[in-house]
Amino acid sequence: MHNENFTRSVRTVALIGKYQSADVAESLLQLAAWFRSQEVMVLIEEGTAASISAPGFAAVPYDVIGAQADVAVIVGGDGTLLNAARRLAEYGVPLVGVNQGRLGFMTDVPREQMIAGMTDLLAGRFQTERRFLLDAEVDRGGERVFRTLAFNDVVVSKGDSGRLIEIHVSVDDEFVYVLRADGMIVATPTGSTAYALAANGPVLHPAVAGIALVPLCPHALSYRPIAVGDHCRVALSLVPPHDARVHFDGQARFDARPGDVVRLRRAQQEVVLLHPPGYGYFAMLRGKLHWSATPKH
Amino acid sequence: MHNENFTRSVRTVALIGKYQSADVAESLLQLAAWFRSQEVMVLIEEGTAASISAPGFAAVPYDVIGAQADVAVIVGGDGTLLNAARRLAEYGVPLVGVNQGRLGFMTDVPREQMIAGMTDLLAGRFQTERRFLLDAEVDRGGERVFRTLAFNDVVVSKGDSGRLIEIHVSVDDEFVYVLRADGMIVATPTGSTAYALAANGPVLHPAVAGIALVPLCPHALSYRPIAVGDHCRVALSLVPPHDARVHFDGQARFDARPGDVVRLRRAQQEVVLLHPPGYGYFAMLRGKLHWSATPKH
Amino acid sequence: MHNENFTRSVRTVALIGKYQSADVAESLLQLAAWFRSQEVMVLIEEGTAASISAPGFAAVPYDVIGAQADVAVIVGGDGTLLNAARRLAEYGVPLVGVNQGRLGFMTDVPREQMIAGMTDLLAGRFQTERRFLLDAEVDRGGERVFRTLAFNDVVVSKGDSGRLIEIHVSVDDEFVYVLRADGMIVATPTGSTAYALAANGPVLHPAVAGIALVPLCPHALSYRPIAVGDHCRVALSLVPPHDARVHFDGQARFDARPGDVVRLRRAQQEVVLLHPPGYGYFAMLRGKLHWSATPKH
Amino acid sequence: MHNENFTRSVRTVALIGKYQSADVAESLLQLAAWFRSQEVMVLIEEGTAASISAPGFAAVPYDVIGAQADVAVIVGGDGTLLNAARRLAEYGVPLVGVNQGRLGFMTDVPREQMIAGMTDLLAGRFQTERRFLLDAEVDRGGERVFRTLAFNDVVVSKGDSGRLIEIHVSVDDEFVYVLRADGMIVATPTGSTAYALAANGPVLHPAVAGIALVPLCPHALSYRPIAVGDHCRVALSLVPPHDARVHFDGQARFDARPGDVVRLRRAQQEVVLLHPPGYGYFAMLRGKLHWSATPKH
Repeated sequence: MHNENFTRSVRTVALIGKYQSADVAESLLQLAAWFRSQEVMVLIEEGTAASISAPGFAAVPYDVIGAQADVAVIVGGDGTLLNAARRLAEYGVPLVGVNQGRLGFMTDVPREQMIAGMTDLLAGRFQTERRFLLDAEVDRGGERVFRTLAFNDVVVSKGDSGRLIEIHVSVDDEFVYVLRADGMIVATPTGSTAYALAANGPVLHPAVAGIALVPLCPHALSYRPIAVGDHCRVALSLVPPHDARVHFDGQARFDARPGDVVRLRRAQQEVVLLHPPGYGYFAMLRGKLHWSATPKH
Repeated sequence: MHNENFTRSVRTVALIGKYQSADVAESLLQLAAWFRSQEVMVLIEEGTAASISAPGFAAVPYDVIGAQADVAVIVGGDGTLLNAARRLAEYGVPLVGVNQGRLGFMTDVPREQMIAGMTDLLAGRFQTERRFLLDAEVDRGGERVFRTLAFNDVVVSKGDSGRLIEIHVSVDDEFVYVLRADGMIVATPTGSTAYALAANGPVLHPAVAGIALVPLCPHALSYRPIAVGDHCRVALSLVPPHDARVHFDGQARFDARPGDVVRLRRAQQEVVLLHPPGYGYFAMLRGKLHWSATPKH
Repeated sequence: MHNENFTRSVRTVALIGKYQSADVAESLLQLAAWFRSQEVMVLIEEGTAASISAPGFAAVPYDVIGAQADVAVIVGGDGTLLNAARRLAEYGVPLVGVNQGRLGFMTDVPREQMIAGMTDLLAGRFQTERRFLLDAEVDRGGERVFRTLAFNDVVVSKGDSGRLIEIHVSVDDEFVYVLRADGMIVATPTGSTAYALAANGPVLHPAVAGIALVPLCPHALSYRPIAVGDHCRVALSLVPPHDARVHFDGQARFDARPGDVVRLRRAQQEVVLLHPPGYGYFAMLRGKLHWSATPKH
Repeated sequence: MHNENFTRSVRTVALIGKYQSADVAESLLQLAAWFRSQEVMVLIEEGTAASISAPGFAAVPYDVIGAQADVAVIVGGDGTLLNAARRLAEYGVPLVGVNQGRLGFMTDVPREQMIAGMTDLLAGRFQTERRFLLDAEVDRGGERVFRTLAFNDVVVSKGDSGRLIEIHVSVDDEFVYVLRADGMIVATPTGSTAYALAANGPVLHPAVAGIALVPLCPHALSYRPIAVGDHCRVALSLVPPHDARVHFDGQARFDARPGDVVRLRRAQQEVVLLHPPGYGYFAMLRGKLHWSATPKH
């Protein structure tokens, strides 16, 4: 990764937090007060603001954050950051994640070092990292019936019928196979350590320009995860009479009908993550996946 | 893949075949006669020539092929092509694979359509595809003690002791983990469908600029295959007192001692594969992995 | 397996077939006529009878088959046999499966050799094999709210929410773990080659007195399939607020609420399968799973 | 498991420890003194005795332990217990494992609670558990050329050639398949949590009367782990020209030639393990495999 330090002058910061969490509320208020003491303008995402009591701070919607914030600080877990990333992707606002409790894959500033971390942030000691998203749409009879972004993954899966579904898969219009399975995960490198990993997919380092196709419980035993280039167009067609549930980052959902085509490609937008000094991707993975840092002998 | 047709005028062709195979010998002689009838100069690799009887054709070493051939036609299986690819990599001679019997991952002209295929080749109807190799070296006490190229994979593994080994892994000088396992496979996209696939590695499409790190029977259960960018430098150090066998494409071997470091990076050379009209990567995989081309219902 | 030949005198045979299939109808009529010619009384399962036209044969419900038939011949695929097995389990009627088209895991008389097979059956040349089923019930607040049998498997899984569920698992009242996953498959040896195999479960030979617990996409990477003894009581409790869909052989379904406990143990009933002469379990698996019967070299 | 308390009066105890470990030596001396204070006769295995200084205690070979000891206390890790189990199997001496440092799969008395544990042992509060071993032999041209016992596993694998081997597998003289792979692990339930688990084998609960066959990196993708009944005879024949290394519990080794047959069946001997009060198999696995004991929500 050719990462660079984030040296933009931070005049306005947006705070976004997991809703309905007393711990998160406390952290947010502390951050808000501290940023104000540093003469940084503070915006609080309106849904976040509604679940804490922060009089004296501006409660604003995502588009105002997009237009005005130099950086967004997200307090919570990876799910909270994921949601903010999708909402802010079109604006390119850089994101910092403060984890509440456990280290996350993306929320890498520990709560206890929060103020020290923000000091580093304002001082230009954070690193930028660009991550890509998937632009996902569903076509029905030639017309687009749904569209959204996904930062982690798009999952096409059987619903609660208990039976497998059949998906006709193509990449750049080249036919791959007809998959008979519980479903298919299409993941970015960011999402490769999320649901796709549980389904035996590979870890794709964020610098790999690839998209992972990971079948869910394929009926035949020779279907394996495949990584294709990030500029590929992936199409998943539901072979009639099969329908499917389509989930986007586990946060948005679309019910697809027989014949619907889920089309995926790299989005034009990117997510800019900011990491604290000393951050390392593999060090983070070691912590999350309990990999060994020392020889036994 | 932004493949292009191979339109270079073919004046000299090199023939390389699996040694000691009567079937291959017959195909080679047929090809040699046919190319001569097309007024194409024919060179036969000297080891190949020694195992067939082809009076009237030039038997030459690999460096002459490298200097003079416009294309090399390999008759045999993937192993034969792999060997030729490593030997010819520094010269950039494009390769065509004719399979003898079963379709290969890379030998994609069927023997029965061999002459029709060569007609297409001379007529400029083949497609070019560029594949990368690994430049592998072993360092001992700061000095390089071995160096070679690998087109498929480099495998660092325990020998016949029956005990696991410990490998300190880093990528671009960033520490990844200490692996306790039977070994580690480092594979190119080309090699991702070979040994790495048997070890639960992902398929990397040839257009993915990535290198797969696939642990062999890791002692702890949370070690999974990882793909890193193709410009990464991968280093595998043998934690004393462990030694290891290092295999390159399953064809060359080096016995590494405790403390030795196996260093891998993308080679400057590339392999140029030529595919017949109608070739498709996924169609080839469907055939090799018995993936379904049709819905059940 | 200490299998014995099935030498009971067959005076009454029941015919059961996949519904709404013209091919199956033709086979059933041919069988019915042939059994009559052999002076064997023929009963046709009433649902089967409704989808073919078989005047002159008795159309009867499953309980009549259970009371009167010496053997039931099932024509269709494994799903048809599975359904019949569950329906007839309490009566102990031996089952013969005739596959229509493709070899099944349990329907092992090929359609083309159907009459020869039935001749062997009447002559006492078939082998008996006993297979066990699961007795499954769902408890809610201490009361049983559902009960059924499963021959292949019981699957407790998330519905279509796209989020994992939490299951508290115990075996013989010994706590195993809290599983965070898409769900859990509990399979008999018979079911070990069905859905459980797609979820990376082991093949359990039918003579292994064991039950396989196979997690579906577990969130943590160290959860692996476990086989426990067939006399174990397995309990899967849904940790609130999680609910789940419970499927039995993919044919019956129950919607479980938070706190519900799915209890599984070996059923008192058994299924008796009859196999034609020359049947072998591994030969069948080789055919189904494309295992190699010959060395390459 | 129908375990019973171990109520035999303990008059003679054997102490066996990992060699050349200062920590282990200290524990052994402490145990020896304590047992003497309880008027229990102490025997020290002669190899163990040679690596500690224990004047005044009898240093004896394994056969004397087998003849005279009421129980053997093993101090070290699972490897030390494994070795002692194989050596003492023919005598049926019950084994207690004291782990030094980390909890083991079988060494379940923590070093810090060692004396309290031994007090429970003498008071009849330990539980007995019977585990089976494999009786392994190698036949060459109809003659037995090697024989040993294995408590965990027998592994037939390629040596350091880097190429796969071919193994003709049969179970109770029924042909299973020709395996092309790095090798095959045949594991007892005890061994199912050792090397076999790293190779994607299932956990077999010790009460499951089964043997696991786990292929190592099979060349074709549809080969999966299989469990067969514990009374099966498993035969692995090396298809010429392939040879193999055969490891028994990772402690003994035999070099097999083309055509050699490795024959495995349940041994007549059993290992009796003694567990402290409160021991539970799944609790032990949770600790070793980091399984979750609590819901997240």
